[in-house]
Amino acid sequence: MKAVALGGGHGLHATLSALRRLTDDITAVVVVADDGGSSGRIRRELDILPLGDLRMALGALAGQENPGPENTLWQRVFEHRYGGHGALAGHAVGNLLLAGLLEVLDDPVAALDQACRLLGVSGRVLPMSTQPVDIEADVTGIFGPEGGDQGRDVAHRIRGQVAVATTPGRVQHVRLDPRRPRACPEACDALRSADVITLGPGSWFSSVLPHLLVPELLNALVESEARKVLVLNLAPQPGETAGFSPEQHLEVLAAHAPRLRLDVVVADTDAVPAPDLLRRGAEAFGADTLLTSVGAPDGSPRHHPEALAEALADAAHHRVDHRDPLGPARTGGTNGSHAAVAPGADPARPHQEEDRRWP
Amino acid sequence: MKAVALGGGHGLHATLSALRRLTDDITAVVVVADDGGSSGRIRRELDILPLGDLRMALGALAGQENPGPENTLWQRVFEHRYGGHGALAGHAVGNLLLAGLLEVLDDPVAALDQACRLLGVSGRVLPMSTQPVDIEADVTGIFGPEGGDQGRDVAHRIRGQVAVATTPGRVQHVRLDPRRPRACPEACDALRSADVITLGPGSWFSSVLPHLLVPELLNALVESEARKVLVLNLAPQPGETAGFSPEQHLEVLAAHAPRLRLDVVVADTDAVPAPDLLRRGAEAFGADTLLTSVGAPDGSPRHHPEALAEALADAAHHRVDHRDPLGPARTGGTNGSHAAVAPGADPARPHQEEDRRWP
Repeated sequence: MKAVALGGGHGLHATLSALRRLTDDITAVVVVADDGGSSGRIRRELDILPLGDLRMALGALAGQENPGPENTLWQRVFEHRYGGHGALAGHAVGNLLLAGLLEVLDDPVAALDQACRLLGVSGRVLPMSTQPVDIEADVTGIFGPEGGDQGRDVAHRIRGQVAVATTPGRVQHVRLDPRRPRACPEACDALRSADVITLGPGSWFSSVLPHLLVPELLNALVESEARKVLVLNLAPQPGETAGFSPEQHLEVLAAHAPRLRLDVVVADTDAVPAPDLLRRGAEAFGADTLLTSVGAPDGSPRHHPEALAEALADAAHHRVDHRDPLGPARTGGTNGSHAAVAPGADPARPHQEEDRRWP
Repeated sequence: MKAVALGGGHGLHATLSALRRLTDDITAVVVVADDGGSSGRIRRELDILPLGDLRMALGALAGQENPGPENTLWQRVFEHRYGGHGALAGHAVGNLLLAGLLEVLDDPVAALDQACRLLGVSGRVLPMSTQPVDIEADVTGIFGPEGGDQGRDVAHRIRGQVAVATTPGRVQHVRLDPRRPRACPEACDALRSADVITLGPGSWFSSVLPHLLVPELLNALVESEARKVLVLNLAPQPGETAGFSPEQHLEVLAAHAPRLRLDVVVADTDAVPAPDLLRRGAEAFGADTLLTSVGAPDGSPRHHPEALAEALADAAHHRVDHRDPLGPARTGGTNGSHAAVAPGADPARPHQEEDRRWP
């Protein structure tokens, strides 16, 4: 099974960790908009792609869920961050190594392929664009109640991945700068020849949406005959999606990429307060909804790799109930949030309906 | 043949490039006193060994005389220096990679062995000490004539490899801080089991002498039954040895390490204005003198790797004329500076006696 995962950051790490359990043929297509931390510093200094999300994707493919002694030396070195209190402090060694490869080879795809080799990774990590991009967002409500009622509706433009991901306002729309960045051709090829494509989870406006704003990448995604699976977050992200319901996440996607069609929307049972609303949102994309338990057993807002792998396998292999897309919720089931539980889901992980994390 | 080369910087690079032509079993033992450039910055920030001389030695063992497309990717990446104008600008990627290995493994020898593996190097690179050291020197004449005659004789203490290597004064004595640094045990072992040991060429006070000031390393050197070969510089170094004759270089060694005995002193014919004086200096160490042409054919003050390899082979294999240590100069030869030319030396490289670089 050829799998392509679109995303960035910890969300992409989760999908890749799950997909690794299903196939060796994985291509990660990674957002290149980060402007914070080690990545942001290196990006500004060397005028190259931001590297942190790419490095994390490499780590996920190398099996670094909890980097430790079982990882190879280079995998551990890659994720190590320098100590001290100087200019190097906090830089991930892998970022600097990737930067060196990139400067020497002058080709991000070749540099990432070499890094895969060093780390013993069998899949591939590609940037969504060969150009670094910046995210711009129109945001309302930045000034809060003290701005008065009128002030709340005025849209302000904010710029940068960090600013968008942490804005106290409400994101209305995002754009990329440059407006139409060049897609990575190898990423487009991977999408066209994939059997299954995943989008999300992750910071919605800064790691998931940006892929849909790269014209050639969106074309390849739309035209691909792969199964297209959207994985929703376990909880709204403080900042950019605070107060967004699962179905609002779908609306945001539709508003930014009206041509996008999906096959399956995967969400965690406990994270969906109104399954019917989510199902209707998914139907607007032509997608079935797969509600199942995919969160970490400890209740933290992280995906459980085994459970997510089961859900993705079900989604990829058409094991979602097509005959009754609204599932037991419409047919009299007493617990709407358990609708369409995937056959392989672990019944031992309890559903805590009272502990809903969506507002 | 087991060879161990003591030194640092470009001088050690030259010896290693020559030794590579004679054997695969080479251990470089490298000074760890650098406080300038990329090495100095990393050393201060992360409180680790200075890495630049170690990186250069790795490069020499990897065959990087003129790094280019014939080198492997990692060899090129290792030597690459970041561009830009920020905190990374000028850092060698290899230094940062070594720093990452060192922080993760917390063992400089293991880190260097891993770097050898990455670079495909068959020999070994070791630090002379497992602690970073600083060089302190007593220097006279710093203030020049305007300080008056008395001022010229007052010794000033200067500190740091860069300060010592570039002082406008005359170095009288050097010390290390800490005074008695811990030797690298693997370096001592290598010296004891070596067949041939080379010391120099290089910055005399900051790359060559420091090895003799590490007590356990000096013990291992003195006790080793290897052939001990001192390679003199092609020209005095502006700064630390400006105005020093070849024989004064030997006197400086004797003053700092009276127990040291040598087997052969190798010097370039064109760099020795008074062969008899040099021979007498060498005899004080119990050493024969091998005068031959070892400079680069273009006249630059760099050793020619092939020629130096021939000279080292002659020195290692007792092919220096023992019966008449003063050579043709004493037995009626007309050209003293051609004395004891090694049998394998290339007669095509002309001796330019008029172009003496020693004052």
